[in-house]
Amino acid sequence: MQFITLLTDFGLQDGYPGIMKGVILGIAPQARFADITHLISPQNILEGALALHRSYRYFPSGSIHIAVVDPGVGTARRPIAAHIGEHTFVGPDNGIFTVVIQEAVRAHWKQQIIHLTKPEYWLPNPSNVFHGRDIFAPVAAHLAAGVSIDELGEPIADPVTLELAQPMRDGDTLTGQVIAIDYFGNLSTNIFAQEMSEFSNPTIFFGAHSIHGLVNAFGDRPEGELIALIGPDQELMISVVNGNAREVTGCGVGQEVTVRQRKPSP
Amino acid sequence: MQFITLLTDFGLQDGYPGIMKGVILGIAPQARFADITHLISPQNILEGALALHRSYRYFPSGSIHIAVVDPGVGTARRPIAAHIGEHTFVGPDNGIFTVVIQEAVRAHWKQQIIHLTKPEYWLPNPSNVFHGRDIFAPVAAHLAAGVSIDELGEPIADPVTLELAQPMRDGDTLTGQVIAIDYFGNLSTNIFAQEMSEFSNPTIFFGAHSIHGLVNAFGDRPEGELIALIGPDQELMISVVNGNAREVTGCGVGQEVTVRQRKPSP
Amino acid sequence: MQFITLLTDFGLQDGYPGIMKGVILGIAPQARFADITHLISPQNILEGALALHRSYRYFPSGSIHIAVVDPGVGTARRPIAAHIGEHTFVGPDNGIFTVVIQEAVRAHWKQQIIHLTKPEYWLPNPSNVFHGRDIFAPVAAHLAAGVSIDELGEPIADPVTLELAQPMRDGDTLTGQVIAIDYFGNLSTNIFAQEMSEFSNPTIFFGAHSIHGLVNAFGDRPEGELIALIGPDQELMISVVNGNAREVTGCGVGQEVTVRQRKPSP
Repeated sequence: MQFITLLTDFGLQDGYPGIMKGVILGIAPQARFADITHLISPQNILEGALALHRSYRYFPSGSIHIAVVDPGVGTARRPIAAHIGEHTFVGPDNGIFTVVIQEAVRAHWKQQIIHLTKPEYWLPNPSNVFHGRDIFAPVAAHLAAGVSIDELGEPIADPVTLELAQPMRDGDTLTGQVIAIDYFGNLSTNIFAQEMSEFSNPTIFFGAHSIHGLVNAFGDRPEGELIALIGPDQELMISVVNGNAREVTGCGVGQEVTVRQRKPSP
Repeated sequence: MQFITLLTDFGLQDGYPGIMKGVILGIAPQARFADITHLISPQNILEGALALHRSYRYFPSGSIHIAVVDPGVGTARRPIAAHIGEHTFVGPDNGIFTVVIQEAVRAHWKQQIIHLTKPEYWLPNPSNVFHGRDIFAPVAAHLAAGVSIDELGEPIADPVTLELAQPMRDGDTLTGQVIAIDYFGNLSTNIFAQEMSEFSNPTIFFGAHSIHGLVNAFGDRPEGELIALIGPDQELMISVVNGNAREVTGCGVGQEVTVRQRKPSP
Repeated sequence: MQFITLLTDFGLQDGYPGIMKGVILGIAPQARFADITHLISPQNILEGALALHRSYRYFPSGSIHIAVVDPGVGTARRPIAAHIGEHTFVGPDNGIFTVVIQEAVRAHWKQQIIHLTKPEYWLPNPSNVFHGRDIFAPVAAHLAAGVSIDELGEPIADPVTLELAQPMRDGDTLTGQVIAIDYFGNLSTNIFAQEMSEFSNPTIFFGAHSIHGLVNAFGDRPEGELIALIGPDQELMISVVNGNAREVTGCGVGQEVTVRQRKPSP
């Protein structure tokens, strides 16, 4: 059973993800698909890297993940395939695999990264604007059909990675950033539950706002209230109950978020 | 052959429905998916309940339907699974299954509703904000893999149901409401073809508008004309030919719609 | 292995494409799906015809393609199924198959087009507003399950086709049109690479804009620059690097685009 996931910034109107599935089914008719998203903001590699990491690890070992956010398509940027841990990844070497690679480094997972240089595993005459269709889909299909990753090109050891914002600690103050905003407008930060657990009585400051303490669930507070809670990936998340924190607060990705222990009232 | 459908308000940008599929495939690799929609208006349980009822009955008997519009996730609201008629449903006990349950009651279908209380069938350490991933997806997968619904928790007999607006008759006047508006802007009401058939020459009044008679099909009238016809679920539907009745009329869900027999001209 | 693709203007919010899959699975449980798009602009048959042609040919021979952009649903317009070349198509006879049929004519492919007249292959009591669910989905499913296309109705030889804008040559000037705009805002024309190759040093004029020469890839120029290049279907495409050419230029479908050989400077 071979599962292939797709994550792109191609949108849903033009049929490009469907075309990629058609290409794959021509090579690996048994392959089965799951779309992760095709609504990564156009050309936003970092947003794609975070969405890929959020998603891929819930799939069975052996799954193949195609990730294409690719402003450099057709230029010298390398197309790659990689075995990382128990999963396989296919896409451009532009940082889209940053979070997966960093996790593999931290966890000492095996990594095998291949620069795709063998056109015999691509569609003929690949377009300079659509490697998703002409290189990444057929390569993923050949991998699903049993071709060894070694046959697809040359090993590399220097994949491109992006720099991710890291939270900073200064005394009893922890400062991070909003790094992702979901469809509901929830603001997810790069501060995690483990770090929050060091504060017995935290106040969270961002922009002109402050929130005292964490709640357990959205429904613990009345509709419209600005809350902080632990999000789906164990991150500090800022939300509005049954509302949209992005719209209510006007905060975007990159917004600084500071956590401080609340001083007991005198 | 085990089919699993998904209906949520999760949107399509963040990968949450794909993540649920990954979780399911890890437990029930043979499961096959059909997305119903992930664009239910955020937290709009009633809209989800109507969309679920509109959709599920076109799937084969034995299908499993996950429905998650869940503002109370992580609070005391119960997670449930249910055999209702020939189908199985998984989601929060917040009214999302209202229309399915009401139909089952009217039709005297067998119902077996289980409060999900056995964490051994969930992902470990479920998040308080994403039961779709951590409870409902794995439970649906275990059902698809052959686990009996009895094993998943305790039977309940008091599922939450929402009150649905009902049309009212006053003499020869029938008054209902717009209950759903589709992507094209068609206004669907809670008045059905059977009730309309009692009017040999109906006039439909709503807001400042009135429409005389029903047409058979969109194309029976010129582009831009406001029409009434029988919609895809046998309901009275108000439309604009090749246009958007919501935008043209400014009417929304809840708009009162009155049907009266047209008086013959003197 | 029977693949069925779906292309509609139904949108993604109401569950209509999922309902079609449910209908199909009830008849042909082995069928496997790929969505092309459900975001064709409402009632825009030509846009659907172009998207179908862009997509279907990447699927394996023997695939079945349902295409439903159908403002005439429920009127006298004919529902049809067709074997064209190595593929099968199902949908309304309103021009949605224009580009596929024209290609078949040019390439002398075998065509067999059937007016669907046998209700025993439809859902009972088909709605006048949703033939996708009640006629096209069950017909595609019966084809997938092995029913011969001959059994579904009567052969026809006069399918409706739309007139497509053709580029015009006047001396050394080639004038075409923008015929499609993708999600990224790229403007695709009806002028193709083969025609462009006749210009050693082309200038492209449209609206108030002109572009000298073609680039190979988006990334060959700085962000924000207006460029011309060969698009994914070998067409002349106008783009903004990491930007949206539709928004930047204000040009839409139908915009005239002229190519002239650039005069050497004196």
